[in-house]
This record gives sequence, C-alpha cells and structure tokens, in this order.
Amino acid sequence: MRTSKFFISTLREAPSDAEIVSHKLMLRSGLIKRLAGGIYTWMPVGLRVLRKIESIIRQEMDLAGAIELSMPAVQPAELWQESGRWEKYGPELLRLKDRHQRDFVIGPTHEEVITDVVRKEVKSYRQLPLHFYQVQMKFRDEIRPRFGVMRGREFLMKDGYSFHASFEDLQREYRNMFETYTRIFTRLGLKFRAVTADTGSIGGTGSHEFHVLADSGEDALAYCPDSDYAANVELAEAIAPSEPRSSASQTMKKISTPGKTRCEDVAALLSIPVISMVKAIAIMCQPPDADSAQFALLLLRGDHDLNEVKTQKIVGEFRFARDDEIVEALGCKPGYIGPVGIESIPVFADRSVATMSDFVCGANEEGFHLGGVNFGRDLPEPLAVADLRNVVAGDTSPDGKGKLELCRGIEVGHIFQLRTKYAEALKCVFLDESGQSQAMEMGCYGIGVTRIVGAAIEQNHDDRGIHFPPAIAPFEVCIVPMGYAKSQSVKLAADELYISLKAAGVDVLLDDRNERPGVLFAEMELIGIPHRIVVGDRGLVEGKLEYKGRTDTEPTMVPIAEIGAYLKARLCEESP
Amino acid sequence: MRTSKFFISTLREAPSDAEIVSHKLMLRSGLIKRLAGGIYTWMPVGLRVLRKIESIIRQEMDLAGAIELSMPAVQPAELWQESGRWEKYGPELLRLKDRHQRDFVIGPTHEEVITDVVRKEVKSYRQLPLHFYQVQMKFRDEIRPRFGVMRGREFLMKDGYSFHASFEDLQREYRNMFETYTRIFTRLGLKFRAVTADTGSIGGTGSHEFHVLADSGEDALAYCPDSDYAANVELAEAIAPSEPRSSASQTMKKISTPGKTRCEDVAALLSIPVISMVKAIAIMCQPPDADSAQFALLLLRGDHDLNEVKTQKIVGEFRFARDDEIVEALGCKPGYIGPVGIESIPVFADRSVATMSDFVCGANEEGFHLGGVNFGRDLPEPLAVADLRNVVAGDTSPDGKGKLELCRGIEVGHIFQLRTKYAEALKCVFLDESGQSQAMEMGCYGIGVTRIVGAAIEQNHDDRGIHFPPAIAPFEVCIVPMGYAKSQSVKLAADELYISLKAAGVDVLLDDRNERPGVLFAEMELIGIPHRIVVGDRGLVEGKLEYKGRTDTEPTMVPIAEIGAYLKARLCEESP
Repeated sequence: MRTSKFFISTLREAPSDAEIVSHKLMLRSGLIKRLAGGIYTWMPVGLRVLRKIESIIRQEMDLAGAIELSMPAVQPAELWQESGRWEKYGPELLRLKDRHQRDFVIGPTHEEVITDVVRKEVKSYRQLPLHFYQVQMKFRDEIRPRFGVMRGREFLMKDGYSFHASFEDLQREYRNMFETYTRIFTRLGLKFRAVTADTGSIGGTGSHEFHVLADSGEDALAYCPDSDYAANVELAEAIAPSEPRSSASQTMKKISTPGKTRCEDVAALLSIPVISMVKAIAIMCQPPDADSAQFALLLLRGDHDLNEVKTQKIVGEFRFARDDEIVEALGCKPGYIGPVGIESIPVFADRSVATMSDFVCGANEEGFHLGGVNFGRDLPEPLAVADLRNVVAGDTSPDGKGKLELCRGIEVGHIFQLRTKYAEALKCVFLDESGQSQAMEMGCYGIGVTRIVGAAIEQNHDDRGIHFPPAIAPFEVCIVPMGYAKSQSVKLAADELYISLKAAGVDVLLDDRNERPGVLFAEMELIGIPHRIVVGDRGLVEGKLEYKGRTDTEPTMVPIAEIGAYLKARLCEESP
Repeated sequence: MRTSKFFISTLREAPSDAEIVSHKLMLRSGLIKRLAGGIYTWMPVGLRVLRKIESIIRQEMDLAGAIELSMPAVQPAELWQESGRWEKYGPELLRLKDRHQRDFVIGPTHEEVITDVVRKEVKSYRQLPLHFYQVQMKFRDEIRPRFGVMRGREFLMKDGYSFHASFEDLQREYRNMFETYTRIFTRLGLKFRAVTADTGSIGGTGSHEFHVLADSGEDALAYCPDSDYAANVELAEAIAPSEPRSSASQTMKKISTPGKTRCEDVAALLSIPVISMVKAIAIMCQPPDADSAQFALLLLRGDHDLNEVKTQKIVGEFRFARDDEIVEALGCKPGYIGPVGIESIPVFADRSVATMSDFVCGANEEGFHLGGVNFGRDLPEPLAVADLRNVVAGDTSPDGKGKLELCRGIEVGHIFQLRTKYAEALKCVFLDESGQSQAMEMGCYGIGVTRIVGAAIEQNHDDRGIHFPPAIAPFEVCIVPMGYAKSQSVKLAADELYISLKAAGVDVLLDDRNERPGVLFAEMELIGIPHRIVVGDRGLVEGKLEYKGRTDTEPTMVPIAEIGAYLKARLCEESP
C-alpha cells in the first residue's frame, strides 16, 4: 500500500475524555473515530488490525474443526423468553420493537439462536459432536461505556458453541478449545495467561478466562510460577494455614486508640505487625430461611482484603451495612467494631483468622481496641470458618507446588462448559445409541476481537506510541523515503524496494507523502509499524538502507542487496 | 473440506411459505435457516457463497482505489435529524432508544455517518478525492419481508461513499465505479445489465442500477440490442411518433358496446386493431396552486400501460380516482369513460395519443363508445401532451439507434451521484485552491451482497437444484466416492485425488459420508456444485474417473493421470 492511496489521519493530542493509554493511542493514531458513547468507526488503519486478528482466529478455529456460520444480530424475544434470559438479563440487553410491535433483542450473545438451529437440525447422536462459530458485531448497552474499545457498546466477537452427546465429549472439546485459544493468543504475539474463572451470568460449570497481561488490566490474577496453576483472584483459593492455633499467652486488655480507625494505623501506634490484627466487616445478609436481612460480622486478618465472590457463596446475597445499622447492632461507630461481647450476632471468620491467637481487634467502643484477644476464652469460636479473602503474593498455591504471585490482566477470551442449561430450557435433545432422548451437552467459547486491539496496545506501547506485535500490526514494514518528491534516486530505490517486498509477500507501506521525514517517522511510530526502512540519498551513496525495529534504540545500516534477507530474518524472529 | 467435518443439511421439500424458486432452493439446500420474518442464519454452505462474493467485491473495490473501513450499525438519531432523514424516512428505519432513552437508529445506509467522519477529517482540496467503503450487515424493517434474502430485513451490503472537490471529479469516480461494478458482476459469473434508473429516496441526480437478468425479476428493463442504451422501464423514454397526425377521414359516431369495458374487448367486437383505441384513466391530482385534489383524465393508446413515475413528474402527486368520483365528474361508470364533451376537465395525453386520428374511445355513457373521434374537431386538443406510458418492445430506442427490447431483472447494485445534498445538510466543506469554503461533491455506491445469492439462483437453476456460477459456488468441485467406507481402492483413490486437488488450490469437497450414491449425487446437485468427479471401482479397473459438469447431460470418463489437467481446463473455460 502507498500512503497516498490510503488514509492515515493522526492527532497531536488525544481527546480529554480518553482515560487509558490504549484509548488515547487508538484515537491519536486514527485507528478508530468516536460516533457515540462506546460506538466507534473502525478507520482503515484500525480495520487492518482487526482483520488480521480475525484471520488468525478463523484459521485456528477451522483447524480445530469448528464450522463457521453467521447468525442474525436481531433476534426474536420468544427465544429469550424460552431460555428465561428475557427476564434475567439486565438493561445491557438492547430490546426493541419492530414496526409490527413485535419484541426483538440485538443479541449480545447467541446461545438461544444456535440452540434453536441445532434443535431443528440434529436428531441423532450420529450427528454429534458439532461446533459452530461466527465472527460478528454485537451490541451490549453498557451503562457507562468507557476505555474505548475495552468496554464499548458495539464490539466484534468470535463466539462458538459446541454440542455433544456426552459430558466426556464436551470435556474433550473444551480441552481442544483451551489448546486452540492458547495457539491463537500465541500467534497474535501477546503475553497472556489462562486462568480458572468465575462463570458470571452465562452460567454452567467449568470455565477458563484468557487474559492479556498488562499493568492496567481490570482483573487481578494469581498464578504459581512453579506450576500451571492460575486463577482470577475472584476465584483463587486462599488455603488454610498449615500451623494450628497457638495457645493464648496474653490476657485481654482494652487499649486507647483515639482517632485510629484503620488497622495499619492501630498497628503503627502499638508497634505491632498488622498481621496481628483482626478487622471486622459489618454486612447485612439474607440467609435462605430468614424473613429479613440479618446483621453479621466478617473477620479478616488486618492485611487481607475481602473477596466478595467467595463471601457470597458462604453467606448468600449480601451488602455492606450502613453506619446507622452498625451503631444499632453494636452500639459503636465503624472503625472500632469487633467480635467480642456480641454473642447474638453471627460471625464468619476467614481461615487465616481462625488460627490466630493474642490478636488485636476493635472494642465496640469509640476510641478503643482490645489486645491479647483469644477465641474460646474471650469470645466464642466463629459461627463458620471459610475462605473469605483475596489471595496475596506469597500465599501457598492451592496445588501445593509453590507460592502464588499476582499480576493484572485484560480478559480477551472465555471458554465455558454450559452443560445442559440451554439444551434443557430450549428442549434441544437427541436420541442416544439406545434410542433414549437426552438433552445435549453444550460448550461455549468467546473471544473479544475488538478488545484484543486495546489489550495489545495496553501491553505494547511506549511514549512514542504503539508497538504492535508484527502479526497484528496494520503493516509489517514501512518504507520511509527521505525526499520522495525531490530525489529521483530516492524515489527509484524506494519504489524498487516496495515492489520487491510486495512480491515477496511482505505487508509493506510505502510512505510516499511529501512531508518532512520527522513527521513521517513520528506517524509510523505512533501507529505501531514494527519494522522501518529509511531510503535516503546519504545511505544510497554507500549502497545502504537504514533499518530500525520499532523497539530498537539505534538504526542499522544494511547493504541494499541484503535488505530482503535481513528483513526476512527480523520478521521471522518475531513471529511466534 | 470433507463432508464429515462440515455441515450439510438439505430438505426434501421447501417450506410452503417460500414463494419464489431461489427462496425455495436456498431453504432446501440448507444455505439459510429462517429465524424470524426476513431474518436468516447463514448456514456454513451459504456463508461460503457469501464470502466468495464479498471477496471478489473487496478485491475490485481495492483495485479501484476505494479504502475499506467499518462504520457502526447503531447510529445516533442526531445525525439523521441533521440530514432531515429522521423525519423523511419511513417505518423501514428501525428506531430505538438506549438505556438512557437516547434515540438511535440501526442504519439501513450510512451517508450521515460517513459524511460526519469526512467533515471532521478533511479540510482541504489536497485531501480529496476520497472513497470509503464497507461490507456490513444492515437492517431495514420491511413491512412484508418475503422472497427469502431478496427482500429480507437483515442483509449484507457493500456500501461505498466518495467525496470530491468538483463535479468533474465526481463524474470521473462515477465512471470508475461503473466500470468496477461491471468487472465485479462479470467476475461473479452473472448475466447482468446496467440501466439508467430513477433515483428513489436516496436522492441526488444521475444513477445507474445493475440488474441480474432473470425472468422472475421484479423490475422491467428496456434495452437496445444495437447500442448501449438500457434503462429501467420506470424511466425509459417513449419517444414521440415521427409521423404527424393524419387528417380526419371519419365522422364521429356512437357505437353500442354493451358489457365491453376493456379496450381489447371493444376492439374485438368492432374488428379493429387495439392501437386504434384510446383509453382514459381517471385520476385525482393536486397541482401546486390548487386548494384541493382535482379530477383529471390521462389518455393512452389502447395497447399501452401507464407509467406512474413519469406521470407524477407531469401532474404532480396523484392517485387513481374512486368509482364515485368518476361518476360524479363524468356522469358515467368506469369502463365507458372518455375525453369527449368534458371541456372543464383537464386532459393529459400520451405522445402516442396526440398523433392519433379517427380513434375509438369511451362515450361517457354506459354501454357505448364513440368511433371516428378526432382532436380539434370533436374535442379540444389536450391540455398537455407528454410521455406518460411504459415503453413496449419494438419502440424506437431513445438514442435513435434501433428498436427497444424488454427483459426482467433483479437489482443488485446501484450507483448514485448524490452531488452536495448531504454535504450541504451536514456542512461537510473543504477549502478550495483559492481558499474558498465549498460543499463536497458526493457519490454513493451500493451492492446487495445477500441479494446476489438469491439473484444468482433465480438465473441459474434447474429441476435438480441450483447451478452456481463457479466463482461463487460453495465448492468448485466435489468428489463423490462410490463406497468410501466399503472399498479400500475407492477410498485410496478419492483421498489421493482430494489431496492433489487441494494442493493445486482447487476448492474441493470430498463427500466421505456413508450414504447411497444417489443421495450424494442429488445433494451435490441441489446445492449447486459445478463440477463432480465420481470415484468408483468400475472406473478404477480401467484407470478412469467419471467427470460431470453440473449442466452436462452426460458424464465423461477421464484417465486418472489426466484428471488434474482436464479439470483445470473445465474450471478455466467457465471463469470469465
């Protein structure tokens, strides 16, 4: 491609509403243009990136035996009523009426439609397994679209759905997809990690998320460097301490801690480590057999954070108690509350707390804490002991094979074992070998294609702009002539190089605009082209061209005759 | 592809609501599955056809210098209010509200969005011309979706929009697109015709439609075999007869024609040619200066049909008069009305009528006609003489180079010179060479991608099913082994042939299912694969394979060693 025949339009400054670096860089480099909140036009440069990602996904899905089709974006409400999601799905589901006042949705996902196709097409175990996928623009009416394509409303998804005659066969395909996703993200040139995941609203059991690793990622991930254990922190188990509780060695005493409401501050005041402290979190929860919401305390070690997903599994739906509810229950303001002397209130303790002795906690009296506190002696054993906290770096890995480390990631893929949830709701059945009717086992497998572009940039950028992994860069190589319009020899050499690289199958951009070299360099670096060749009169005199990789600190002069081979070597070393 | 790894699912009978042959065959061959009225899932076989069409369109658009991008499907209402189409567009425009109650549309077309992109990006004549295009699923809320993908609600479009600094440059690009579309439809392997067209609701001046020729086509087309004149009958000019009106030779007389209300019946009764008759059509029209709708008569020669598009250009908005309005104005029931003795009523005559003499027309008295009628003597000259009728075969071509012929077509492409309509409404301006601000000249260029599939089938089918042009067939070649599961030599030969054809870049399907050959043959013919090779033990003994083209009457035995070259020759002879 020649720049003069293409459309590149960059900005000096990103619009002020762009909050994260990928959003800023995508707008500055002209990959996307905003049309409305969370709705973007993919400009020619951006679309090339998207198409390269799509193409790698398609190749790998096809190789894995999945079959592509294309389902409608607009879906009749009836199917969503059949699955029960018409009621359950929140306002992100864009509902609309056609001119005859019939209800439709713009599908954010296609479980219902594909299950409807399969229940009409498949009657026998002999037709199974089947795996259909599509690559399609979807719509989700986010309440607050932001971060550019990371949390947009209109976004491109690869969504696949597999159907099986047995759970074993679903598990086989699930492993097949785990491996396929691993190949896809490897080929895209991204540093990523697969983690076990909470299944969220899609339902079913068994799922993995694929995260692109980036410090700005929304999700916290825990992994063990010495094994293949990895999980979303939402789900990563904090295992119980191996040592038993020590015996009490102190007597309980009240300590004045005026104005110190945070564990760190109390610990500093008392010159004790924060791990000797227990913090109490007041919640209102609704046990299944209770008439109304009930006040309860959660106990965590002073340095630990609550994990709401795990807590909900133990106590049921809950919310944090309001200040007035805390005062009513404990007779004390938040900041000094604790588990001593409140026998009628249910107390749930984290596993780490259950093995503590001689600890410090709030005294349920403003300005005071208690020291030397011990379960069994100063207060009853907790109602329940469970895993209520987020893991922290250094925790023992749940597989026992080392210590956990933490990192942050951006979720770009998700695979689920849906089991028979949709098949039962929509009566998607088959006759098994013995002639019995059975609901099909289902898996579903998604990749956020547009989001990958944002995630790739979060992971790969510097102060000059994007440095795309070569497999998804808008162009692999750019040729920047110094004076294309002025120097006949530069023009000749640049054209010749362009033609020879194109003939060799290289995706090359010849920047033939009549602009200052500094402007061209800055623009090619901003949009993240990984390899650059400068054609200038000075080099040509010596029979040389100047090569520079996007992340190289210094350029390299390469003899013209060798540039093809040199570039090929550089392209190869970067492809996974 | 192997059938066992693919998904083919055909039906013996088409659903009864499928009205036309392409709809029936698309459902029977499993190209599409209905989800809701006018909304279809493109199944794997159908998607392959669609992708091949898309790919040819993209190649030719890129070669022509257009640049691909991707605009959102969901568009904010503000832009449509700015262009004025929020009010003007009918209920086919699907309007919706997001969760914040902001108005959006699902764009059936993207003039507003692209004009918004360009007005923000382009400031100078130096950045022009530009031509952006996309290939995208669009939605149009048809009141009565039917004919399958021919008039669906969700459909795939290629839409392109060009921007220019001058009308001359727009005309250059318009010719470029005319040639590009001609190449595209030629490469698709379709018999087609470009015709001048009425511009309909998109607006602007200057447009051509591209029609796939098929007897079932919705549009009537007129063309001159001796020149390049071609037009939609809606627009084709019926030129004035070259001979002047003959002098009157008969006296006017009343003729009893009881029960004969149609021209053909009266002509038969009187043993005169129907071209000696004048028919009167009563309308209510609203001239710009009139307070209320006004009764008027249109006069056509007995064998001619009214052209409503042309008539509207002469009389303004009109409707056909009701029977009671006719009786009130003429004192006579429809069937016997005519232009004699009604001096106060405006009469518009077609050009052919204006040169008639001694004609027969209704007498404005039930059961009677008038013969020997002449303008100037028996009734005044008409208020206006104009082109009011559809052309018929044998009419002189408007370019004077021969006689017109008629055919029917299915519109699959449309190119428009929009001029500055949208640019002015949305203030899409640029600075010209002299620093003056000017509105951009615009062109727009559409292809109905999904509709092409239906049109191709309307043009290419027989009683066994579809015969796709090879360029868009789901597979170019199928290999049908006679007993793949039973005969080791058949399996070996079929696998070998499959591998060698794939290696040669042929898009081949190996039908490795364990079904009776008759079933396989019928299915491959139904879905329209253009070339078939049968591998059977009987042929293998002689070292031969059986080749049959989809429209061949007899198969040909080809030596195994020659099959590659033979097939290559057959594939080449069919590619345009």
